[in-house]
Amino acid sequence: MTRIYFDNAATTPMDPLVVEAMLPYLQNHFGNPSSIYSFGRETRLAIENARKTVASLLNVKPGEIFFTSGGTESDNMAIRSAVEDLGCRQIITSPLEHHAVLHTVTALQKSHGVTVEEVKVLPNGHVDLTHLAQLLNTAKERCLVSLMHANNEIGNLLDVHAVGALCRQHQAIFHSDTVQTVGHYPLDFNRDNIHFATGAAHKFHGPKGVGILFISENVKVNPMIHGGGQERNMRAGTENVPGIVGFAKALEIAMQEGEKDQSKIQSIKNYLAEQLLKNVPGVAFNGDWNGQSLYTVLNVSFPVTPQSELLLMSLDMQGICVSAGSACSSGASQGSHVIQGIPGNKQGVPIRFSFSKYNTIAEVDALIEKLKALL
Amino acid sequence: MTRIYFDNAATTPMDPLVVEAMLPYLQNHFGNPSSIYSFGRETRLAIENARKTVASLLNVKPGEIFFTSGGTESDNMAIRSAVEDLGCRQIITSPLEHHAVLHTVTALQKSHGVTVEEVKVLPNGHVDLTHLAQLLNTAKERCLVSLMHANNEIGNLLDVHAVGALCRQHQAIFHSDTVQTVGHYPLDFNRDNIHFATGAAHKFHGPKGVGILFISENVKVNPMIHGGGQERNMRAGTENVPGIVGFAKALEIAMQEGEKDQSKIQSIKNYLAEQLLKNVPGVAFNGDWNGQSLYTVLNVSFPVTPQSELLLMSLDMQGICVSAGSACSSGASQGSHVIQGIPGNKQGVPIRFSFSKYNTIAEVDALIEKLKALL
Repeated sequence: MTRIYFDNAATTPMDPLVVEAMLPYLQNHFGNPSSIYSFGRETRLAIENARKTVASLLNVKPGEIFFTSGGTESDNMAIRSAVEDLGCRQIITSPLEHHAVLHTVTALQKSHGVTVEEVKVLPNGHVDLTHLAQLLNTAKERCLVSLMHANNEIGNLLDVHAVGALCRQHQAIFHSDTVQTVGHYPLDFNRDNIHFATGAAHKFHGPKGVGILFISENVKVNPMIHGGGQERNMRAGTENVPGIVGFAKALEIAMQEGEKDQSKIQSIKNYLAEQLLKNVPGVAFNGDWNGQSLYTVLNVSFPVTPQSELLLMSLDMQGICVSAGSACSSGASQGSHVIQGIPGNKQGVPIRFSFSKYNTIAEVDALIEKLKALL
Repeated sequence: MTRIYFDNAATTPMDPLVVEAMLPYLQNHFGNPSSIYSFGRETRLAIENARKTVASLLNVKPGEIFFTSGGTESDNMAIRSAVEDLGCRQIITSPLEHHAVLHTVTALQKSHGVTVEEVKVLPNGHVDLTHLAQLLNTAKERCLVSLMHANNEIGNLLDVHAVGALCRQHQAIFHSDTVQTVGHYPLDFNRDNIHFATGAAHKFHGPKGVGILFISENVKVNPMIHGGGQERNMRAGTENVPGIVGFAKALEIAMQEGEKDQSKIQSIKNYLAEQLLKNVPGVAFNGDWNGQSLYTVLNVSFPVTPQSELLLMSLDMQGICVSAGSACSSGASQGSHVIQGIPGNKQGVPIRFSFSKYNTIAEVDALIEKLKALL
């Protein structure tokens, strides 16, 4: 059975060129980058070249990029730093954020007594920027605004430039979980007044276990993980050299081929939407799917039937990988907090289809045939 | 120029069998282990099998092993948990600990107001267990004792069983940085009453960027990194599947071949000591080198001469990789805090030689010839 993988927002297959770039650092170049002999300097150089590549592709300075173990660690560090180091006593966020943000905020609420405000969500899944402005206006303490650039379940894209401008106006700190957009769009964190942004290599054909935290040079924070002087004293621990090299290579490929890939993937998303509307009566889509939305994600709301409630499992048995929401919470039984966080629109069985450059129109056709048989 | 790598306490070359075990998870088996479809369950199974392997090799339960990004993260989480979740208000540690411990302790001293006591160190580099007992006797609050199993610079081995017994007697929590002994010795954390222990794959021919934290089932703590439900809600973030598979494979090889490797490596250490004493007048050794000491580490004190002060650099130019102390602090200019923390014995230029199964007696002979020429 040929597998059809439509869950690229959860994780992506590695690009063989990325594996190839990593291999020398798994095999021969193993020196500890903190060692002072020349063999250690080889791997030090690999890390610093990776940092320069990443910084240049993201339009930031190398000194603003810190390598971490992934998007979740980066989100944790950003939010914790804003509270512990930058004096944010109020956090404004939305109910649609990733658990890496929501659970960190809850933990800091308990441990540090910060207050938390939730921005209202509109029926199309966008956060209500008028309400955000009101919250910032009435805030009595310094705020951290934590709003993700692209929602990982419904694909909605935030107007980060507008949010950044609001934050600047109110001297708020702006953290954006950009895990679904790094490697997918040209970005400019400084233009958008973003103080903290995050990325994970495995979302764009790089390895699992490595991420970045962008920290604007305008803010000075302390490490979350203490120890050796790695990452300019900001993230201790022997560096994951192959992972870091893989992050940079994956981002390089993603940005070089970005436009071509984007138009291909967008056409796959559009074609799936069109075919579903044609073939599945009562189908609908969650979020602003044909507006400000990721080209990689289509969140489909299937009419509730005995068949659709078993759809994930039935598709799995047919070799088709899709998900009900975030992989990070798919073990949870209570359904998607994102779908539940959107006003109205709670009927339907939500299924997320997410695409990469390795998908094809033929795979959509195969999916549609299987759906027609299953539903 | 053939390279001679005598810095295995900093990091080790990967065993080709470990790379081979990881490759399928870099190439084909890329599913997100949190996904519920069968393709995700493949990688979930790989992680859980790795956990079982590691637990079995370390004589603990699978539920006591948590995968992290490395030894430093594990040390941070252990110490933070003891303070935040287990009510430890006093930390007893030694001036010879790794910075992953010392800097975390300092950070918690500032942020949480815990008091910190340092156990005295004996001239042979061992911590003074009589003093530790006194500190525990006079402690007014619940204590965390954080003492490393093997010192990464001088190689001294702690009597963890004795320290564990003292901790049990005083209801103290015992954290041991076991980064230099996991994969090098048979261990039994539960027998020794250790609550938290740590390991890093790259210290025993596994990959960089992956480690473990052992948490005794007798203590219940919260995560340090919040988000998805990975690692049974204890360590959020998409799992580094290839790294975790590599950790288990490296530990498996290390424990299977442990006795053979240990006797080979011990003979290399002994031979180097013998040859140095024969060929370098005034040479001495730091720590309890021929007593309770790692078979992998020999910390040599060279008599101070203009030549010996340039020795690291001169050896590097001859293709020989050795270090002055921990790689994690080798960028620092102030010299080794470990050597400085041992009473007396501060003369001499300290150089750490550390060995692995890939070293040979012939390499020692080559080193001795070069040293004779250089000094």
